[in-house]
Amino acid sequence: MKMSNRISAFQCSPIRRLSPYARDAQNRGIKVFYLNIGQPDINTPPQVLEAVRNYDQTIIAYGNSEGREDLRKALPDYYAKYGLDVRSDELLITTGGSEALQFAFMTLCDPYDEIIIPEPYYTNVSSFAHSAMVNLVPVTSKIEDGFSLPDISEFEKRITRKTGAILVCSPNNPTGYVYTREELLQLLNLAKKYDIFLIVDEVYREFCYDGEEFTSVLAFPEFADRVVCIDSFSKRYSMCGSRIGALVSKNPEVLANVLKLAQARLCPPEIEQVAARAALDTDDLYLKEVKAEYEKRRDFIVAGLQKIEGVVCSVPKGAFYLVAELPVDNAEDFAIFMLKDFSLDGKTVMVAPCEDFYETEGLGRKQVRIAYVLNTEDLAESLKCIEAGLKAYREKVLGELL
Amino acid sequence: MKMSNRISAFQCSPIRRLSPYARDAQNRGIKVFYLNIGQPDINTPPQVLEAVRNYDQTIIAYGNSEGREDLRKALPDYYAKYGLDVRSDELLITTGGSEALQFAFMTLCDPYDEIIIPEPYYTNVSSFAHSAMVNLVPVTSKIEDGFSLPDISEFEKRITRKTGAILVCSPNNPTGYVYTREELLQLLNLAKKYDIFLIVDEVYREFCYDGEEFTSVLAFPEFADRVVCIDSFSKRYSMCGSRIGALVSKNPEVLANVLKLAQARLCPPEIEQVAARAALDTDDLYLKEVKAEYEKRRDFIVAGLQKIEGVVCSVPKGAFYLVAELPVDNAEDFAIFMLKDFSLDGKTVMVAPCEDFYETEGLGRKQVRIAYVLNTEDLAESLKCIEAGLKAYREKVLGELL
Repeated sequence: MKMSNRISAFQCSPIRRLSPYARDAQNRGIKVFYLNIGQPDINTPPQVLEAVRNYDQTIIAYGNSEGREDLRKALPDYYAKYGLDVRSDELLITTGGSEALQFAFMTLCDPYDEIIIPEPYYTNVSSFAHSAMVNLVPVTSKIEDGFSLPDISEFEKRITRKTGAILVCSPNNPTGYVYTREELLQLLNLAKKYDIFLIVDEVYREFCYDGEEFTSVLAFPEFADRVVCIDSFSKRYSMCGSRIGALVSKNPEVLANVLKLAQARLCPPEIEQVAARAALDTDDLYLKEVKAEYEKRRDFIVAGLQKIEGVVCSVPKGAFYLVAELPVDNAEDFAIFMLKDFSLDGKTVMVAPCEDFYETEGLGRKQVRIAYVLNTEDLAESLKCIEAGLKAYREKVLGELL
Repeated sequence: MKMSNRISAFQCSPIRRLSPYARDAQNRGIKVFYLNIGQPDINTPPQVLEAVRNYDQTIIAYGNSEGREDLRKALPDYYAKYGLDVRSDELLITTGGSEALQFAFMTLCDPYDEIIIPEPYYTNVSSFAHSAMVNLVPVTSKIEDGFSLPDISEFEKRITRKTGAILVCSPNNPTGYVYTREELLQLLNLAKKYDIFLIVDEVYREFCYDGEEFTSVLAFPEFADRVVCIDSFSKRYSMCGSRIGALVSKNPEVLANVLKLAQARLCPPEIEQVAARAALDTDDLYLKEVKAEYEKRRDFIVAGLQKIEGVVCSVPKGAFYLVAELPVDNAEDFAIFMLKDFSLDGKTVMVAPCEDFYETEGLGRKQVRIAYVLNTEDLAESLKCIEAGLKAYREKVLGELL
């Protein structure tokens, strides 16, 4: 009996595969600061939890494959706040943004087709590509450029007859970069020129800093038929566990085909959709405050990291991640060291090594992704751990070399 | 821009694709009895809904990719009631049995690999196979044999170097057949002989009638390493909308690889898992009563169908479906007629045409799947509609022919 080559070819998520080390550390009584995963410590809006507690059905029954009517009907108002014209029949509710991405891959690509993507990218995209047997073709974005869009000619060079789509995430996970209107236009024009799709993951839409405005890919009606937008309630309303997302497209053929996949898996989880519907009633003030909180954290952790000798980190413009280059040869080894062999006053941190956020062999080996989803006090302690941990790690490695 | 061949090659679910006709009928004020979909009218156990209403977290946070600890830890006791030895680390919680099936396909098969399956089969399996680019190789089970396991030589004949697994569903959706211990042993021995896997979907485990005992594929320890069992809370506890299932395997390599897929999609929905945990505390009496209710319905609808001229239907031994052959040339056309052009005292029924439950071209064209998930009063009215509908349809078709 053998496992498929498909599954053998891909690694456990670098965001989650070090979890056993973290559990062991906890079992040894060590407090672990989880900077590896985008799990906010922000409370879910209270009316979301209230809606759950008021769930009044006597049967938790199958819903529509497209998602609950009330949820779909309420979403256009949400988009309208951003000046975006999205009708309720131009979107499908999915089981997380994850499922929306998988649906997009399956619908737009056959096995061995290609999707062009700036690297580093959200590593689970690689898993979804492997599942769908789609090849990711990377264009490297660079820490020294703040991970802005690489020259558009780099994308054009990589287009072949097998290219199904270009995929970007904005605000970006893991880099925090927010693509400008001009960058999006470049991508859209390229997609038009070669008659391919542009998929944009906008699940961090609300989190743009420095007073900059976010430009959605849905704001370009003249390109609407070649755009697939991935959305999610997870981060916006701090309800990651609900797994409610959406796929938005103004191309009816895309939606009709995605619906086949949606029907096969029957429906998104029902109670979580009730929660998501309530989330749409959230006061704008909540999102404003959450954004201000993340911006404060970003300022805090970037300033702190830049003070640590040998650490390079660009200033993220959005989302709640950053990619930092550490003064180590192997960031994964360092991440394991932090959990296995290190603690400072009974505390340590867990970070996500970045090598698997790159498709190109050898890149990102010194980098880690840090999710600044903890309050500034915890971040302060985390920074102390990272600084002391780096020192201890380098001494250990140096010791081994001697 | 083109859609993938993968997605273009498959149809909308025959269980759900007639839904727009049903909605139109409802909008015309017609009461539709939904026999097309396995959505029970049985109440979810009250403590499940209570657990939802008592949800006391302030953040709906990501959970473990393997599923909630409390849920996984409680499941071995459930299996023990059936004399099955399953440890909590031998199972993963999935987003419905649907996801468990998809995980199994991706883990065990590469594109263009083959899975041998008795037909008719649960039609969404075909969608999952298409998504994974796996070819289903059918062995036809026959209505005149009560859809029992075809001769094992028919399976053996179809094994090639591309065969990854045999997949059966017991109790069967759509036929209601329950595989015997001897039939399972034949399949297991064949799987062993050719070193392949046996996947068994047992989500209807509780629903076996006529006092017959259910034999689980997990009851054969000597074959344990080549068995993957698909499970779900949906039907057992009438909580289909929660989308909580499980994949069980005693082969650690299978689980380790499935975990990669589980990690990519992050976690199953959190609140629905809380509901599922509470479901495990359900009194045995509930399941006993539900089973008795379905058995009563089965007796009722089978007797009713067999009285209708020209209708052939075998007696299902389990689950809550049956496949009936109708005196029509095209059951899908009839199903649409029932929704579009027919009503009896303002009522009609929706059934699932069976052609897509077969892989072999041309089979099942006269058959429908009926889910007897409604109470006997509704079933009585449904039977009247079917009888009158058949008469009206045949007159119409005859009229068109003249």
